[in-house]
Parts: sequence; structure tokens; C-alpha cells
Amino acid sequence: MRPPTIRDVADRAGVSKSLVSLVLRGSDQVRPEKRDAVLRAVRELGYRPNAAARSLSEQRTRTVGVLLNDLRNPWFVDMLDGLNSLLHANGLHMLLADARLNRRTGQDPAGPFLDLRVDGLVVVGTLPDPAALEAVAERIPVVVAGAREPVPSGVDVVAGDDEKGARLVAEHLIGLGHRRIAHIAGYGAVGELRRRSFEATMREHGLADEAVVEPSDMTEEGGYRTTVRLLSRADRPTAVFAVNDIAAVGALSAAEELGLRVPRDLSIVGYDNTSIARLRHVWLTTVDNTSHEVGRRAAHCLLERFEGAGGRGRVQLAAPSLEIRGSTAPPLTD
Amino acid sequence: MRPPTIRDVADRAGVSKSLVSLVLRGSDQVRPEKRDAVLRAVRELGYRPNAAARSLSEQRTRTVGVLLNDLRNPWFVDMLDGLNSLLHANGLHMLLADARLNRRTGQDPAGPFLDLRVDGLVVVGTLPDPAALEAVAERIPVVVAGAREPVPSGVDVVAGDDEKGARLVAEHLIGLGHRRIAHIAGYGAVGELRRRSFEATMREHGLADEAVVEPSDMTEEGGYRTTVRLLSRADRPTAVFAVNDIAAVGALSAAEELGLRVPRDLSIVGYDNTSIARLRHVWLTTVDNTSHEVGRRAAHCLLERFEGAGGRGRVQLAAPSLEIRGSTAPPLTD
Repeated sequence: MRPPTIRDVADRAGVSKSLVSLVLRGSDQVRPEKRDAVLRAVRELGYRPNAAARSLSEQRTRTVGVLLNDLRNPWFVDMLDGLNSLLHANGLHMLLADARLNRRTGQDPAGPFLDLRVDGLVVVGTLPDPAALEAVAERIPVVVAGAREPVPSGVDVVAGDDEKGARLVAEHLIGLGHRRIAHIAGYGAVGELRRRSFEATMREHGLADEAVVEPSDMTEEGGYRTTVRLLSRADRPTAVFAVNDIAAVGALSAAEELGLRVPRDLSIVGYDNTSIARLRHVWLTTVDNTSHEVGRRAAHCLLERFEGAGGRGRVQLAAPSLEIRGSTAPPLTD
Repeated sequence: MRPPTIRDVADRAGVSKSLVSLVLRGSDQVRPEKRDAVLRAVRELGYRPNAAARSLSEQRTRTVGVLLNDLRNPWFVDMLDGLNSLLHANGLHMLLADARLNRRTGQDPAGPFLDLRVDGLVVVGTLPDPAALEAVAERIPVVVAGAREPVPSGVDVVAGDDEKGARLVAEHLIGLGHRRIAHIAGYGAVGELRRRSFEATMREHGLADEAVVEPSDMTEEGGYRTTVRLLSRADRPTAVFAVNDIAAVGALSAAEELGLRVPRDLSIVGYDNTSIARLRHVWLTTVDNTSHEVGRRAAHCLLERFEGAGGRGRVQLAAPSLEIRGSTAPPLTD
């Protein structure tokens, strides 16, 4: 049995050899159906690209390190899927580590990866110490996925467009007829972007005075407490936009406890389209961050850097979409 | 600055050097408070055990591969935490891979790990092809965590005690006064063990005729559909024990949709104590598998094998506990 060639992949996928190459380089110029067909053929045949193997010197481990902010929070799972699909198709393995644990040791969070001589690093979510990252970026390509904090020069950033996402939410609620809308805000660059965009959209619709913003710690408990506070106001909002799904689930509980029915008495929107939002018991209107696409693009950035692309880091934003489910409706007319 | 020694760790933790050694070897003979104090001191000082480093020849990568059944299902997160804590304290890194992806390529799921020459392998959850595992187990130590399928000789198994867990659930419901109790069953060895133990416990309480068992695919949708079916029966159950939390969440939705209030009209119990069960909006009575402990014991098995322990594989079961939350109550008296 000879190993499968790029020609076999092209035949099986019903496309040209050059299209297979485009897909394996992670090009954005390929239609999703074609891309899926090629990646499926790669998987089914067990194809390993020679080019990728050649371009990686013997010194290399063909391994990419993925530093996760906190393994306990599963929002990154779709992103890993996207990362993995493209890295795998290029003969690269993915190695994960939990930045939370490394931080607790007080050590360089990327240290273990450097010891193992990974070829590149993907940092998923909130950034560890930027100075440490700079030292890593001097040795291997680094991509930050799903965070918007400033990064050292030469580091690429891929994330969802938080401003666009928050705008989609505000426009959805305004379109349903809501005027008094509250935002359970978060922290960090992502929290800031979502809040500012919510406020700007409300302003553009002449609703600046109807916007209520309350800070939160982005947890379920925080969403719960903030919503209890919001619903105890005399001029209570008819809709709540939470900075993430988990805070929105806290808001659901608060509404339930205060005897309000969602969405009849109160509309609630989350952010991230996590598996929790998709539960029938929750069925939350939320923003889908196209995390799979973010992961795929992060892999693409790394592959380009492996092939020698230099220069300053770029910021790429993936366009989010609104997932309208059962937690939003027009407000009750008095 | 000299690197920290075992003496520094012992001083900081307020224990003896030999106790530190015991903890680092993952001994079960140490009280949890002492163990936590030692592991904290290890982290805070950034201590790296020389012994571990010495025992690992230059050939070794000081890396343990962890093969996850499916990255999208987050039930393994606590287990990884437990694994990581002990491996990290022994100067070992953890490398994760998604068995689902490897299976789709039709390749040996552990292949990438062998290529990277990991020192050992932990298989988390449902087993890949047993034959493939046997080949791996001939080369490096292998531990299966959280699954109960038969394994090749020489492979250790660490899992929660499913029979004990299902018994705890049945006894809790019977103790509340329920007689007509349904079980939404699962598949595989774990599903089988939970079902059989539920049936045995019902039998012991003279309730064999009151036990209803319905199969499911262990998904939310499956739990929902099965519960709709169960609640449409003339002799409908007053309590439902689902094989896992996610199926129990489906049962919650079915009850809600049919106008039944949980726990007043129907008690529902899950299994696994996932983060979903802990949501205030769900607040599910469930079985805690002590996954952190399962992970820690799996790491312990590997460490023993690294130190040369041979012999047949052993099966170790960790004792689960019942987490009583808001989804169970006595049945309504007619």
C-alpha cells in the first residue's frame, strides 16, 4: 500500500490538486462546501502532506502548544475544533495546557511548551503576563485567539468582532420594541468592547437615557445578583443583555425567582452561544462568535508564520451572528 | 538563587521531608490537608523534584498523553485537574488529544502520542479500539480513567463506582417515599452498571414491579423524548433517575412542557455533577463521581508504573457521593 497522495485527495473530494493545496494552507478563498469535502477526504484517506513535512526541519516537533486560560470554562471547545482541523490536515499535533495552573506556580506559563520545543503557540482567551509572551514570541510564532488585550509586536490576534455582536443584540431588542434595556457588563477588553458598542447603539436610536449598565464579574452568580438589583428598580428594564451566556443564565434564575416569565415579562440575551445556551431548558437568544472559524483562522496565521511570513502582528475579527431562540420577545404593552 | 529543595518544600508546608516524598509519589496514606499543603508549597516555590527528573532517562519527554473521548463533552474537566495536579508536582507535562478526530481519520488514536514519544498514556472515557490500545500498552504504561470496558492486560483502570452511585440515587428516592421510579438508561459498561444497580436496589426494597427502565442515547434530546414517553403512561412515575446530567436536563424540559413542576410533581436525578447540574437555573440532584480523585489516582498509577511497577492491571473504584439539590422531594400524596 503506497501512502495517499494529494492527487488521491483531489479525486476523492472531486476538486483540483491546486484547490486541495489552497485548503491545506488554510486559504479563505475556498467555499466552505469545498473546504469540508477536502478536509473529509484528507481524513478518510489518512493523507499526510509531504510539503508540510518537508517544510518542518528535523529540529521541529510538529506540535503546536495551546495555552488555555482556564480548562474549567468550556467556551473554547469549538475554537479548539477549528484549530485542530486545520493543524491536523497539515500534519501538526496540538498540545494543550492550563494557564491557570501554571500561573499558580508563578512560572512562565508558556515554559513547558518551550521545554518541549513546540513549533508555535496559540494563547486562547485572557492573556498571561504580556512580558512573558514577548519572550516566547521572539523564539516561535504566537497567535492570540479570542482575546483583545494589547499584544507584543509580531503576535497575531484572531477574535470575534465584539462590537458587531453587541450591536446585533441591541438592534434585535430595539427592533422588538424594547426601549428600557439593561446591560450586565463584564471586564477586560472584551467586556469593554461589548459595553461601549451597546451604549453607542442605544445612543444612535435616541435611547441613551433608557440604557442601564451594571457591572458584573461575568459569573452565573454575578448575573443573578445584578438582575435582582435591576428588577427591583422602579423603572425596571424590559430586556437584559448579559455580557456572556453564563451571566444570562443567572439572569434567567433571578427573573424566575421574582415571578417574571421569560420572554413574556422580560427578554434576556447572552453572548458566546455556549452549549448551555443550546439546552432546551435554557434556549437562550445569544451571539454566536463563530469560534470554529476563529480557531481555523488562528491555525492559518500559525501556518503562514511557519512558512516564513514575518512582519507585524495583525488583528483579524470574525463576524458574529445572532442566534434567536426562546428568551426574547416584544415587551408587554401596558 | 539556588533552586528550591525538598527541604524547602517541607519547611514551607510544615511537614517532614518523607511526607513530601509520599505526596509526590501520590500516596493514598496522606491526609488531604497535608497533601494540599505540600502541593501548595511545591507550586509556590516552583519546586521541581530531582528524583523524578533522575528517574526519567534522557530518552524521555516528561510528557503524558491524555486521550479524550470527545473534547466537546466537558465532563472530564475535573478529572484533568486531578491528573494535572499530581503530574505537575512530579515535573511531568500533560498533552491532550481528541480521540474523536483521530477515529475519523481511521488511524491509531494514540499514534500521535507515540510519535511524540510520550512516557505514558491516560485514556479518558470510552475506549478506542482495544487492539490498538494493546499495542500501545506494550510500549508505555497506559491507564484508563472513567470507563469500565474490558482492557488489555497490564492496563490500570480508575473510575467512579457506578453501582454505588446508582444505589445512592435509588435509596434517596425510596427514602423520600417514591415507589414508582423510572430510570432513563444509557449504553456501554457504565450505562449497564448503573441500570443493573438501580434494578437491584429496587428489588431489595420490594419495588421490582415499580421500576420502569427506558433506554436512551444519553443526550439531552434523548432524555427529553424518553421522559415525554414516561409521563404519558397511565401509571406514570413520580421520580426519574437519568443516566447522566445532560439527559436529566432533557427530563426537566419535558416535565416543564407537560405542566409538571419539579420537584413538587416529579423528582429528577442526574449523574456526574457536571457544571450544568450546579447552575442555579437547573440545580439538579446528582451523583458526584469525585472525578478529581479519579484523575489523581490515574496519575498515581502512571507514576508507579514509571518507577518500574509491573504486573497485571488493577481496577480501582472511587466512592461517589450524592449531591442533593432542588430537583428531588417527597411525592405528592394523593
